Amino acid sequence: MNELFTVVPPAEALELLLEHCASIRRFESVLLGDGLGRVNAQVLHAPETLPAFARSTMDGFAVRAADTFGASESSPAYLRLCGEVAMGTAATLTVGAFEAGRIHTGAMLPGGADAVIMVEDTNAHGDEIELLASVAPGENIVSVGEDVRRGDVALAAGRRLRAQDLGGLAALGLTQFDVVERPRIAILSTGDEVVAPGAMAALGQVRDVNATTIAAVVLASGGEAKAYGIVPDDEATLLEAMRSALARADALVLSAGSSVSDRDLTARAIERLGSPGILVHGIAIKPGKPTLIAVADGKPVIGLPGNPASALVLAWRIVAPLVRRLGGEQSGAGATGGEVEAILTAPVRSRPGREDYLPCTLERVDGRLCATPIFGKSNLIFTLVRCDGLITVPLDRSGIGADATVRVIVP
Amino acid sequence: MNELFTVVPPAEALELLLEHCASIRRFESVLLGDGLGRVNAQVLHAPETLPAFARSTMDGFAVRAADTFGASESSPAYLRLCGEVAMGTAATLTVGAFEAGRIHTGAMLPGGADAVIMVEDTNAHGDEIELLASVAPGENIVSVGEDVRRGDVALAAGRRLRAQDLGGLAALGLTQFDVVERPRIAILSTGDEVVAPGAMAALGQVRDVNATTIAAVVLASGGEAKAYGIVPDDEATLLEAMRSALARADALVLSAGSSVSDRDLTARAIERLGSPGILVHGIAIKPGKPTLIAVADGKPVIGLPGNPASALVLAWRIVAPLVRRLGGEQSGAGATGGEVEAILTAPVRSRPGREDYLPCTLERVDGRLCATPIFGKSNLIFTLVRCDGLITVPLDRSGIGADATVRVIVP
Repeated sequence: MNELFTVVPPAEALELLLEHCASIRRFESVLLGDGLGRVNAQVLHAPETLPAFARSTMDGFAVRAADTFGASESSPAYLRLCGEVAMGTAATLTVGAFEAGRIHTGAMLPGGADAVIMVEDTNAHGDEIELLASVAPGENIVSVGEDVRRGDVALAAGRRLRAQDLGGLAALGLTQFDVVERPRIAILSTGDEVVAPGAMAALGQVRDVNATTIAAVVLASGGEAKAYGIVPDDEATLLEAMRSALARADALVLSAGSSVSDRDLTARAIERLGSPGILVHGIAIKPGKPTLIAVADGKPVIGLPGNPASALVLAWRIVAPLVRRLGGEQSGAGATGGEVEAILTAPVRSRPGREDYLPCTLERVDGRLCATPIFGKSNLIFTLVRCDGLITVPLDRSGIGADATVRVIVP
Repeated sequence: MNELFTVVPPAEALELLLEHCASIRRFESVLLGDGLGRVNAQVLHAPETLPAFARSTMDGFAVRAADTFGASESSPAYLRLCGEVAMGTAATLTVGAFEAGRIHTGAMLPGGADAVIMVEDTNAHGDEIELLASVAPGENIVSVGEDVRRGDVALAAGRRLRAQDLGGLAALGLTQFDVVERPRIAILSTGDEVVAPGAMAALGQVRDVNATTIAAVVLASGGEAKAYGIVPDDEATLLEAMRSALARADALVLSAGSSVSDRDLTARAIERLGSPGILVHGIAIKPGKPTLIAVADGKPVIGLPGNPASALVLAWRIVAPLVRRLGGEQSGAGATGGEVEAILTAPVRSRPGREDYLPCTLERVDGRLCATPIFGKSNLIFTLVRCDGLITVPLDRSGIGADATVRVIVP
């Protein structure tokens, strides 16, 4: 089959894959302090209303707003001090007509009062409080339930938890909750020329880069990575290694051999692994076209190209969203999708019909983010080490001119 | 002192603080698989040259380019097959004049050859290889040292390690290396009205949100957070708690009480903690103005406002860069500075003279990132829970119109 006719656009390839994948259904209970970056398993409703009591947002005096109307520096109003609200206790004070109760930021609004006047707008002469300004009802107050109400959705299910989400749970006293277990991703490297990173590489051999980079992408996406070593280019051995790894994992990522015959061997082994088998035989992307996407008996199997730069770009483009999906993420960290917009500082060329990812540096110039392409061979690992991001040239473009706004993946 | 005259712009406040702070000098050795997100302590030089041998990037035939000149579909050239290069071994073959050696992607280029012609541009008839195209010297080859050369800087010091950085180290066989220890940040909460997240909050009391959110920001910035509980609003008790916490940490972050008197108490305790003491008494920022920045005997001390939303915004703006600095980070994850550009969908107002941070949602519309302000009180924790980012209104602006490009902090 001619690859030109079988490659699938990246977005379509990912969609095909995700259609076959659901979040894993294993949950674990975590404490608040261990929740950062985890995905909450169920919707969490507020067990109580916050604030539970009307609270002052200023240091000053709790008053009846109507008693302050018309007060100004040239025509002050005068109220009688009726006491002070202590911090951290229920206000026992009641503010009557033409009375003022001293109050601090965060303290409970006393009965009778409906506003707080800032201390800066007052003068105290013994028990007489002079008001140099008026306040409206509700001014300098947070009302009961203004933050969240009992029964409201405090956190939707499937959110990757951020600092503020954990803060919301702390405020509500929700100190322990269920999160989705980290999906377990098995990683296999193949290739007769590949040796482990700790090994001496003889002439003709290269060290395994992909197991390391794929594992890092899995970790950064909230998964657990387990590498099962390097498998020689032999179909039976490869199939057995894949079966064994996948039995203990939720998905399998392998870096297939680089040559066409190795890829064919990998494809045959994947087809034998389970059904429906291979969904995508190649992706309209550069680098990374010879990528296999498969599902074997309900578990995703991704065959990445052997070239380290290609494998990493595809790990970012396909494996990362897969891991997030398996991990139950429905919203949260992905607000920007790991992409930023930047001004292109030099023209780039591409070929219509494929999505190009070009390594670039990013720099702020006069406050605007600028992307400068790193020219040279994009299939080298140290080109990626030097890059801050990858400029995306869309499928239908033959290039992008300087000064245009481009999308940059910042993995 | 009138606060209006003492507040400092956020960027200046941060600069003042960082001038007093150096990276911690404690290192630890980690294995490759544990390196993600850590900061490498020393510059790492390449111990060898990569590729160590010229390598084919295609399946095809290793040839002398000169023998292919002029070859085309209408006028093919013919070479004699002289053998095949095995994967993973030193090429023993030598390609002579008008000879071609079968080669696979990733295999070592045999002696005599200076280019590879793709298999798609050839036809093999037994030992006779028909060439339908020509190749230039160096075509379809990666040369010795094209990726990195022995002695080159493989990784600069102070880089927060990403997938591709670890891949570079794997390629070079650098499987163990020194990273900067995670800086230890002590967190103290104060306030007579504050109770622990696990406690029942009586009327007048609120649960401690700040210890949780600050710890999350510290973790996300590569630090270790240790919370030392809630201290009552008493100067001697607070000073003792601060001394004890700071003795075991590289920096101290406390959420000061909300009222002016509590802040004064915190400020006095910080001044007694060590020299030079308080550097910044207030920041021109909303929310979060009443923030204290201090250095006590070489260790940074940050006093954040008690309001959870204010404390969190300041944790993102001041504490996160501090932790990254203490942790040795000089480059890497910070390419975008945690900020993105987006199109503002509705006008926002501000007050010149302060930097405003307005919660917003982010959404891609026709491929462009759009920021929609969340109106309502910005000092509520659930306003932040609902937000994807914070629109930054610069110091000198009274507002920003719709359709303008704005900077959005995505913490």
